[in-house]
This record gives sequence, C-alpha cells and structure tokens, in this order.
Amino acid sequence: MTTVLVDTARSPYAVLKPVPIESVKLEDAFWAPRLKRLREVTLPTQYKLLEDTGRLDNFRRAAGVVKGPFRGFYYNDSDVYKWVEAVSLALASERDSQLEKLLEEVVNVIIAAQDADGYLNTYFTFERRGERWSNLRDMHELYCAGHLFQAAIARHRVTGKRDLLDAAVRFADHILEVFGPGRRAGVPGHPEVEMALVELYRETGRREYLSLASRFIDLRGRGLIGGSPYHLDHVPFREMRELTGHAVRALYLCCGAADIYMETGDAKLREALDRLWHDLVERKMYVTGGVGSRYAGEAIGEAYELPNERAYAETCAAVANVMWNWRMLLMTGEARFADILELSLYNAALAGISLKGDRYFYTNPLADRGRHRRSEWFDCACCPPNIARLIASIPGMVYSTSPRGVWVHLYAANRARIELNVGAVELIQHTEYPWSGLVEMKVRPDRIDEFSLFLRIPEWCRDARVTINDAEELRPRPGAYLELRREWEWDDRVRLEMSMEPVLLESHPHVTCNTGRVAIRRGPLIYCLEQVDNPGCDVWDLAIIPGELRAEYEPELLGGIVVVRGRALALDVSDWRGRLYAPLSEVKVRTREVTFTAIPYYAWANREPGPMIVWVRLAQPTAPYSGARA
Amino acid sequence: MTTVLVDTARSPYAVLKPVPIESVKLEDAFWAPRLKRLREVTLPTQYKLLEDTGRLDNFRRAAGVVKGPFRGFYYNDSDVYKWVEAVSLALASERDSQLEKLLEEVVNVIIAAQDADGYLNTYFTFERRGERWSNLRDMHELYCAGHLFQAAIARHRVTGKRDLLDAAVRFADHILEVFGPGRRAGVPGHPEVEMALVELYRETGRREYLSLASRFIDLRGRGLIGGSPYHLDHVPFREMRELTGHAVRALYLCCGAADIYMETGDAKLREALDRLWHDLVERKMYVTGGVGSRYAGEAIGEAYELPNERAYAETCAAVANVMWNWRMLLMTGEARFADILELSLYNAALAGISLKGDRYFYTNPLADRGRHRRSEWFDCACCPPNIARLIASIPGMVYSTSPRGVWVHLYAANRARIELNVGAVELIQHTEYPWSGLVEMKVRPDRIDEFSLFLRIPEWCRDARVTINDAEELRPRPGAYLELRREWEWDDRVRLEMSMEPVLLESHPHVTCNTGRVAIRRGPLIYCLEQVDNPGCDVWDLAIIPGELRAEYEPELLGGIVVVRGRALALDVSDWRGRLYAPLSEVKVRTREVTFTAIPYYAWANREPGPMIVWVRLAQPTAPYSGARA
Repeated sequence: MTTVLVDTARSPYAVLKPVPIESVKLEDAFWAPRLKRLREVTLPTQYKLLEDTGRLDNFRRAAGVVKGPFRGFYYNDSDVYKWVEAVSLALASERDSQLEKLLEEVVNVIIAAQDADGYLNTYFTFERRGERWSNLRDMHELYCAGHLFQAAIARHRVTGKRDLLDAAVRFADHILEVFGPGRRAGVPGHPEVEMALVELYRETGRREYLSLASRFIDLRGRGLIGGSPYHLDHVPFREMRELTGHAVRALYLCCGAADIYMETGDAKLREALDRLWHDLVERKMYVTGGVGSRYAGEAIGEAYELPNERAYAETCAAVANVMWNWRMLLMTGEARFADILELSLYNAALAGISLKGDRYFYTNPLADRGRHRRSEWFDCACCPPNIARLIASIPGMVYSTSPRGVWVHLYAANRARIELNVGAVELIQHTEYPWSGLVEMKVRPDRIDEFSLFLRIPEWCRDARVTINDAEELRPRPGAYLELRREWEWDDRVRLEMSMEPVLLESHPHVTCNTGRVAIRRGPLIYCLEQVDNPGCDVWDLAIIPGELRAEYEPELLGGIVVVRGRALALDVSDWRGRLYAPLSEVKVRTREVTFTAIPYYAWANREPGPMIVWVRLAQPTAPYSGARA
Repeated sequence: MTTVLVDTARSPYAVLKPVPIESVKLEDAFWAPRLKRLREVTLPTQYKLLEDTGRLDNFRRAAGVVKGPFRGFYYNDSDVYKWVEAVSLALASERDSQLEKLLEEVVNVIIAAQDADGYLNTYFTFERRGERWSNLRDMHELYCAGHLFQAAIARHRVTGKRDLLDAAVRFADHILEVFGPGRRAGVPGHPEVEMALVELYRETGRREYLSLASRFIDLRGRGLIGGSPYHLDHVPFREMRELTGHAVRALYLCCGAADIYMETGDAKLREALDRLWHDLVERKMYVTGGVGSRYAGEAIGEAYELPNERAYAETCAAVANVMWNWRMLLMTGEARFADILELSLYNAALAGISLKGDRYFYTNPLADRGRHRRSEWFDCACCPPNIARLIASIPGMVYSTSPRGVWVHLYAANRARIELNVGAVELIQHTEYPWSGLVEMKVRPDRIDEFSLFLRIPEWCRDARVTINDAEELRPRPGAYLELRREWEWDDRVRLEMSMEPVLLESHPHVTCNTGRVAIRRGPLIYCLEQVDNPGCDVWDLAIIPGELRAEYEPELLGGIVVVRGRALALDVSDWRGRLYAPLSEVKVRTREVTFTAIPYYAWANREPGPMIVWVRLAQPTAPYSGARA
C-alpha cells in the first residue's frame, strides 16, 4: 500500500509529489520511539476514552444497538474519526495486531451508524433527525464529515479496504445533493471538509468533490453563516488580507484553499494564501510555531498580540499549522514552509502531548506559574487525536519527490526507498537530529542516473556545510533547498553539517510582552526554563546574561535531551512584597550570578509542577541612567 | 435635603460619617465643568438613548401603555435606574429644570410598570411572567432590583419624594417574601442588591433588608448558583483569599460586604475584605486603578496578569473600585483606601467618558494601535450611566466627618458647610488640583472650638508641607491623614503643598508585560503617550531616557491639562519589517534622541486615532553585554 498524507501525485499545480509512509522506516531516537509510544500507549488509551466517554456508544446508539441519550458534545464523532485516521497512519509505519483489531471494530461501529440516505452524524439521529443541516454555522456537521472522509481515505490507503471509503463516498454524495452546484448555498462554520473533499477527489477521481470544496470556499464571506471574523465569513477568502478569527478554523480553511489551488491553479487563491501566510508568520505566530493569542473566541489576535501566560496556542492550531505548511511546501517546494512546519512540529505541537503519550495540553502557554498541567482527556477532545494523527504522519513528511529528484525536508535517522522518474533510490540517513546538526546520508540508486538530491537547509542554520563523498565542500544558503544534481552511484555519501549553536532570540519591538526578554533556540527547538532544573531562584526572576551558551546532552533527562546552559542574574525580588508599582529603582533588587539550565519547550510539564518561562528576562548592564538596571 | 452616597451616619462600625452633596459647592476647573457637562450633555443624551433603544418603552410596555416585544437585553432596566440615580445625584449639586422634568417622567414610567405584588422587572412580564426568579444565576433580576433601590434612595434623599422609594420598598418586600429568612435559599448571579439592601435599611430603618443582604452573602459559595469562580460562588465569601471571577461582580460583592460590616461589625467579613483588597491592589490592579485582565469572562486574572493592549478594565469595574474603596474608607478612616479611590477615579474611571461627555469606553486598554475608540452607546450599556452616577457623586466624596472633626479626602476648589459635633464649619478650598499640589484652605467655624482637620496626604506625595496661618511647617507622612487639632478660629488658613514632580513607575517584576517599561505618574494622574502629540516616531517605539521630566500646563490642550515632557530615544524599527523573531542584535535599530509629550491617561482618544501607550519602553544604556541595547 502507499499511504501518502496529501496525494499530490497527479495535482497539476503541486511542485512536490508525496513519498508514502511505507517507504520510510524511521530508525531514530526521537520520532521512532514516539511512534512506538503512539501505538502502545496513546492510541490504546484514546480508544478506551472514546469508549468510556460514550463516543463509540453514540454510533452504536445511532445504529440502534444501544439505548440511551446521545452523550457529550454534538461534534464528538470527529474524535472517533481522527482516531481512526491516526491508527491507520500508524499502521502504515508498523503493523500492530492489537490496534488493527480495535480499528476493525471501530470502523464497523461507524459504518453501522450510517443512514440509508448516506447521512452520518450520530448527534442528528432520532429526535434530532429533523434538525439536520439546519445550523451550518454552529453544529459542525460538515466538520465531522470532513474528518470521516480523511479517516476513510487513510484507511483505504493503508489497508486497501474500501468499507469506510464507501461510507464516506455515500455521505459525500448525500452532501452533494444538499449543497452541490445548483443546490442550497451553504458554508461550514468550522472549515475542515474542504481539504477532505479535495483529498476524496484525489482518492476517487470524482471531480464533483473538488467542485464542492471550491464552492465552500467561494461562498464564504457572503454572510451565509453570519458574516463574523470568528467564522471567517466576514470577507471572501480571496480578498482576505489578515488571518483572523478562530485559529483552528482559519488554518484548516487555508489547508483547504491550498489543496484546491494545487488542483485548479487559481492564482487568486494562491495570492490570498501567500498574504495570509506572511501575516501569520511575520505578525501573529508564537516563537514556538503556536497560533492563537486569545482565549476569547480561541482566536488569532491583532498583529504582535502574543501574550505568554495567556497564550491560547491550541494544540490543534499547531497541528493545523503543520498541515497548512505541508500543503504550501508541496505546492511550491519553497523552504520557508518547511521551516515553519518543522518549528510548529517540534515545539508548539509536540508540547501538546506528554512524554509518556497519555496526557495532553489543549492550550499551550509560554509562561506559567505551575498550575497548567496536561490532562488525560477533555470534554472537547479535539486535540488528543489530532496530535496522534500528526505523529503518525511524520514518516510521510520526511521526503518528497519532483521530476528532478528527491527532496529531504526533515532530518531523522531512517531508511527510505523512493521511486523517482529515473528509478528507485534507497536513502539511508544517519543523524542524531534534532540533538546534533550532523546528517550523513547514503544514496543507493537502483541504477546510476542523473537526478537531484534537494537538501533542506533550515533558516535557523547560519553555518551549513555539505560534502559529497568527502570532496567539494559546499556552503549552502540557509532557508533554501540545496540541489545536489549528479549521476548518483551506489553508496554515494552526502554529509550535511548544520551548526547548532544555541542562540538568543528577540521579538519584533511591537511584541510588547517580550520587551527586554529573550528566548533560546537551538536548531529546530525552542527552549524554556523550568523551575525543577533551576533551584534557588524562581525562573521568572532569572535574567540571562548574553554570552556563551552551552549545549549538553543529558541522556537520563526527559527521555534524553540536549539542555542549554548559560549564565544569568538571579534577581531577589523579595523587597517587592506587597507592592505592585513603585517609582523606578525605589525597590531594590539584589542580584547574584548563577548558571541556568533550559530544556526544550516540548518537554515541559513532565515533572513536578513549577514556574516555566520561554521569554526570559535579559540582564541589562549596570546603568549610567539612574533608573536602568537588571 | 441631605444627599449622602453611603449613609453611615448611624452605622456603628463606620469610622467616618458622610457629608451631603448639597453641603459642598465645587468651584474648581476640573470637576465643576464635568458636573456641568454631565447635566447639559451626558444625562440628556443618555435619556435620549434610553428612549431610542426601547429601554423606557420596555417599562411602558409592562404598564400596558405601548405594545410590541421587549427590546434589548433582559437586564436593560438597570440602565434606566442608574440614569435616575445619576440625575438625582446631579440635581443635588445644582437644580436643572430640564433634567427635573425628564426625571419626573422617567420615574412615573418606572412606577407604572410595577406589578400589584411589588415585582418590577420589565423583561419578566406577559409571556415571561412565569419565569420570574427561575434563574438567579444568569437573569439579573436581583441586580436590576438593586439598581432600582439605589435610584429610589438617591431620589428620596435629593428631593424628599417618596414615590420611587415606595415602589422600591414594595419590591424589596416582595423579594423578602421570596428569599427572606426561612424562605427560598437564593443568591444573585450578579451582586449589586446587597449594597442596595443595606442602603435601603439605612434609608427606611427596616432591619430585615440588612438581614436579607447578609443572607445573600452568607449563602454564597454553597453552589446554589453553580459554584463557579465567575459567579463568585466557588467558596463562601468569608473564606475568599483571592479576588477572582467577573470583575464588576467581585467588586460589587465587596461593596455589599463592606456595607454589611459597617452595620454588623462581623469581623470575618472585615478580614475577608482586607485580604481581597490586598490581593487586588498588590497583585491584580492596573496602574490606572482599572480592574479586569481578561476578555474571557470579563474577569480578574491571576496574580500579576495585567496585559496592556488586551486589558479589559471595564469602566464599570473602575466605578466599582471607587465605590468599594469609598466604603472601606468610611469603614476605617485609613488613607490607603482614599489613595485607591483617587487613583481609580482620576484614571481608570474617567477614561471611560469622552471630554465632551457623550462617548464611552466599555473596555480600557493601556496600549492601543488606534482602533479602540469611544462609542455613543452599547447594547450592553452598563458603563455610560455608571460613569454618570460616579461623576454626579464626586461632591459627596470630598469630605467626611468623625467625632473628632472633618476629613478632607479629595482636593478640589470648593466651598463647603459641614456639620460637626461642635457646630458647623465652613471650609473654603483654593487649589488648581490635580494640576497643582498647592491647596489653601480657609476654616470658618461658626464658633471657636476644638476639633480636628484631617488632611489626606496622598501616598504618591513624598514631599508634603503643611502650614497653619503661615506658622509651624509640618512634614506629614505620605499615605496617611494628618490630623490638625486645635481651636479653630474664623479664617484660619491651612496651606498644604504637595510636591507633584512627575515620576517614572515600574511594576513588580512578575508583571511580565511591563518588563523594561515605565509609566509616568504626576500627582494622582497616570499619563500616556498618544501619537498625535509625538509626531515623527510611533509612540510604541519611544524609549524614555530616565532623567528630568517637565510638567507644563497647556491651557488649550484637551480642556486644559498639564503635560509631561522628557527625553526619549526614538527607535527606527524599520529593519524589522517582515520579521517577527531574530537572533539578538541581528536586526539593527537606529536611535535618535527626541522630546516626548505625555498626556493624562483619562484624556486619551479625544483627538484623531493613533497609537497610545501607558507603559513606555525604558531606554537602556549602551551595553557592555553584546546584546543589550535600547
């Protein structure tokens, strides 16, 4: 089977073509254990929670197998679908008879709940049958449908089984009858079905699904669902200049538009996507790749509005940011999208799941006093199966191909067998990435021929060196793909050395919350200070002294991580007790120099609770001005 | 008539006794014009809006005089009541036949809407009659009742007319029958009726109203309305250790508890109030005296959570902060409460209304890009009549008395005639406060006798000097009342000089949004930088150089204000274009020195839109550290 994530193989406006999950065998110490934990811990525990919370019983109830009321939120079906998608993708990496058994059961439970007319949503059954499609803005029927389609497609690609795909097609045809061309004009309040419909077109070849997806984009911004920015209905998509509204909805919408562009080549869509992407990454994205500044409306905020303690940065929005940038990357082959994909993946998204794989964050603050802890589950449980399907999809995001050759997006030890125009090539990556920037690859083409190896040089890497077979050192430009074109021979060796010096980052001056503060980045990872590693001074009261930062591998810490250490002033703020404001310099703050230890942000909140902070105060030198001080 | 705001004349546990509005004739250039504008602009335009938005017709509809549906929110009656209270209090300062005519009409409209059983709420009439008292948590019936009581009391005190008071008493008796001792246990979702019931007890002498108010406090925290912090029902009031939840509800609740304490002397109430006050002013209050950090739930946030651009700081919460501190001041005679009262009044509250008196802020950010503008009205119009009744009540907050003498809380040119134990005294204040710290008072006792003049020395004033009849200079302690006890003679002169040097304030280090930032305070006023006064550089990009700050009176600017000028670095951040994060010092920021002009925060957004900021970046000296810079 060939399980690709976004099947651009025949998409006329996609530069890159996918490499199936089955072709990539991860052998690294970072992702491979996470995929194992996904299969062994995350997906089984999520299954149990789907069962215990009545999510599966809602389907059995719809099928008439169990009695009682519908349980939970009206969009709970989507959690089941995302789990099916996650399990399917996980099985593409490695078979697991236990998971397969659970999957078969759940798929059967889903299929049995489908109405004769193709409709499938367990909330709108029995007493609520008459309310179907009566409130597109709020009731998430098309959103749930989209997740069903994605689950069905993943299952079909992994197993070849058509059962769920047939159900999806029946439902899609039902939706076509209701909302297709010439029928009722409707727009989903929560985008998702758009990208799912395009993928269903790719999987089935039925172009009417693509048309329906386009229709859902085209009808947006006409007030059909109230015209609010929250619902992204305030302006037609092609005219949007700013990314606003509910973060996950906004990013899913962009995924759908990108998918449509790759099939249709509609320049206005691409221009809008590019504008929105720039608006996001240059004005509205957390340093972790997280998106969503406001609890109110789970929304993207104004430009530079990026509060830390009250960051919303929903795990689902980080997943969506990966998904959107994956599509933009396939569309263009431009490294800037891979940079944001990697950033969101390793930081904002990965923080959403505990190291053990059984606890989740819904929101992801960038500073905390120790109260914010991961939960086993949520009443609104969109995030847990979303991060699961993302992790399951990692092997499918390592490589792509184009007519000129193979593209390397992510670095992780693996063996891959990739089909190119000139025949298959085996690639063997050796690397300790993300802990080390050294990547050694072996290239083993089935037959000697000319093709290109495109190596992604991350934007964060200001000093990269590439050698082929120990000869001709290249100094590639960061933030671009280095095209190595030659007649590759069996066991040609490519060595990529990416400098991974830890650096202090600062923010655009209008990010007022980060004034006088720095974040630590090393390679693709954003770091944070957690209290447990820094005894003796509240990490909120540490002020980093610019200077040498040391990266040290700690094999026993948090599953094996590289910590970053440096010097800081520890501020004794005890004289501030009982005061909130004071004339400048009236309250004395004593300082002493200490060594601080920072850990990757994704790993926080896996030990005892305590203060955490990403944007750490920067020590200021003793002042010639009367007031300025550390 | 003797219109007092909170009638502690016979309250056994109140240190201070009120001085009626009628006794104080403001003659200053700050408040007196505002009271005039209140009568001439604010209250007439609000009347028109009450009429145009159907708020008065809702009463006429309830009375059967007009037909049609109820209009607006279910709590809209309260806006009418607050307007009645504001008009009544304004008339206590100065008669106005036009306003009196409107008031009579509105009072008649209200009274006609009352049910035979005393119930009065225009939403729960006709088709909703059966839903009365069915949802105490959300439907604000007791909240509206409280505002009716306060309006009726004010009208009675100002005019002696019993009409609305009789209606209030009938409604209060109805509420007693429903929720009194031995009846149904209920708690209002939005506190307000507690303080109103205590005041109704004070006005009528009927102790059962005090008991009912106590009952509403005592039953809180038992889950009767759901047990959420938002509704302040998560813990019994006497056990509360942190001020949480909806800001206005929290502060109104504290007002009610303070009123009850002043009648009952319940030590547990006072301890809780003191804890909550410290929690607020030491951890959760904006530098303006504003309260409420979160849009989500209009809520008070965690300790030190004080975002600037997204400050909620509802105008009503600032009004409530004044009201609560007024009660705490009456209770204790402690200057710390007068300090917060003055701070909230001159800054957080006063910013809620335009200089012309016809536009309002609901939320009050401390930094803005120019989009936040005052509105003529709101669908939820709690703030406009609330700021109106606050301004109308100013003359009643200038003085109090105690058995030892007269207390001066606020400085403003005025003539007052105040009854003391030893006979009446006329006080004449000459001052340009808040623009100048010089206050000259004449004391004119009806007969020579010993009593004390308590002068409030604000906490912000680190250098105050007091002389009596040009002799014996005193250097009183800031943040306290200076007791001047003597046998006062006709035309004794007291001269108080409060140093009003502008100062830069900094925040507790855990207010992470204010790191590296300072605010400007001069006297009781907090300042801001508004773009229109600072051409050539975005005020968000100015960095104040600590050093001399000059206060200069500008008679033509914003109705006559003292501006604060000083030196700043103007940062040219144009190289940041298109970047959100960058390695420290990689993006060069050029600076040049400029003069900045700051205006009082209350006066912002009265000219053309543009960026505004309270917490201005502090210039840092050129750094011995590689990264630190302005």
